[in-house]
Amino acid sequence: MQHKSFRNMSCPIARSLDRVGEWWSMLIMRDALFGLSRFDEFQKSLGIAPNMLTRRLNALVEAGLLERRRYSLHPPRDEYRPTQRGRDFRSVLIALLAFGNRHFAPEGTSVTIVDAQTGVEAEPIVVDRATGRPVREPEFAWVAGPAAGEQTRRRYARRPPGDASPSAAETNRQIIRKGSRT
Amino acid sequence: MQHKSFRNMSCPIARSLDRVGEWWSMLIMRDALFGLSRFDEFQKSLGIAPNMLTRRLNALVEAGLLERRRYSLHPPRDEYRPTQRGRDFRSVLIALLAFGNRHFAPEGTSVTIVDAQTGVEAEPIVVDRATGRPVREPEFAWVAGPAAGEQTRRRYARRPPGDASPSAAETNRQIIRKGSRT
Repeated sequence: MQHKSFRNMSCPIARSLDRVGEWWSMLIMRDALFGLSRFDEFQKSLGIAPNMLTRRLNALVEAGLLERRRYSLHPPRDEYRPTQRGRDFRSVLIALLAFGNRHFAPEGTSVTIVDAQTGVEAEPIVVDRATGRPVREPEFAWVAGPAAGEQTRRRYARRPPGDASPSAAETNRQIIRKGSRT
Repeated sequence: MQHKSFRNMSCPIARSLDRVGEWWSMLIMRDALFGLSRFDEFQKSLGIAPNMLTRRLNALVEAGLLERRRYSLHPPRDEYRPTQRGRDFRSVLIALLAFGNRHFAPEGTSVTIVDAQTGVEAEPIVVDRATGRPVREPEFAWVAGPAAGEQTRRRYARRPPGDASPSAAETNRQIIRKGSRT
C-alpha cells in the first residue's frame, strides 16, 4: 500500500487522489484521454516504474477501458487507446478534477475546464439527465436495484422522501449492525 | 499494491474501483456518507483489516474529509463524520456509481439512484452549472489554470474549439515528448 505521493503534482485530480487512495490507473486514464498512447509517453508523464505501468496498462486493457494495438513489429511495440468505456470514464475524472479544484487548490487552479467557445470556466456538477436537477439528497436517494442481493436490499431499504436526517443515518447504522457486510 | 479484490462485491462503485485502482478510502467515504461512523461499523461493512482501516480513517481526517469526535470516554472511542468537504466528495462517488452501473453490472443494477419523490431511476451526468450543458469535448476543453506551472501550461496549451480529433491527440503527444512530466 506504499505509493509515491501525488500531493506535489499540480494536477487537481492527482491532488484528490493523494487524499483518497491509490491511483495510477486513473492517472493513466487521464493521460490516455488526453491523447497519450505509448508506454514511454505514460512513463514520462507519470514517472511510474515500468513494471507497475505494465501491470496497470494490462489491467486497464483487461477491464475494457483501453485497447492495445501494435504499431511497430520490429521492435514489437504496442499503443493503448481509450475504448468507448474508457471515454465514458471521463465523467469520473471530471468529478475528481472539480473536487480537487474546490478543495485542494488554495493557490488557484492549475488545470480547469472551460467552454471551448467562450473560454468561460465551467463548474461541473452532477445532474439527472432527464430532468436536469442536481443529484443530491434529499431529492434523490440511493436504493437497491433489481439485481441487489438480500443484504444490499436491507441496507439500502428505501427511506421516505426527504429523510436524509441524522435519524436516517441512525437507521442505516442499525441496519448495518444487524446485517453483515455487503 | 496488493489488495483484496472488490470485484465480487455487488456495489457498482466497488466494481468500478476494482478495475481502476486502490480504493479503501473511497469505500469508507461511501459508507460515511451513508451514515456509518464507528470503527466497527466500517470494519463490518468493508471487511477491512483494522490496521488498514485505522490508517485510512486517519488519512481521511487529515485530508479534511472526515471529522473525528469522541463519543465514549471509558473506553475511549471515536466516531467519524463527513465534513462539508467530505459531503462534497459525493459527486465523485455518484460518477463512479453511474460508471459502474453502465459498464460493470451485466446482470442489472445492484445499487442505483432514484428520484426520491417518484422512484424514477436517475441518470447522472456531468454538466456545467451555469449553462446546464454536458461537460464533454469538443464543447468544453481542459486548459491550464492561473496557478499552472510552465510545464502544465505547455501541456494544456489551448486547442482550437472542436479540435478533439486524432491530430489534437498527436499534438499533445508531441508536446509531451518535448516537455517533461507535469
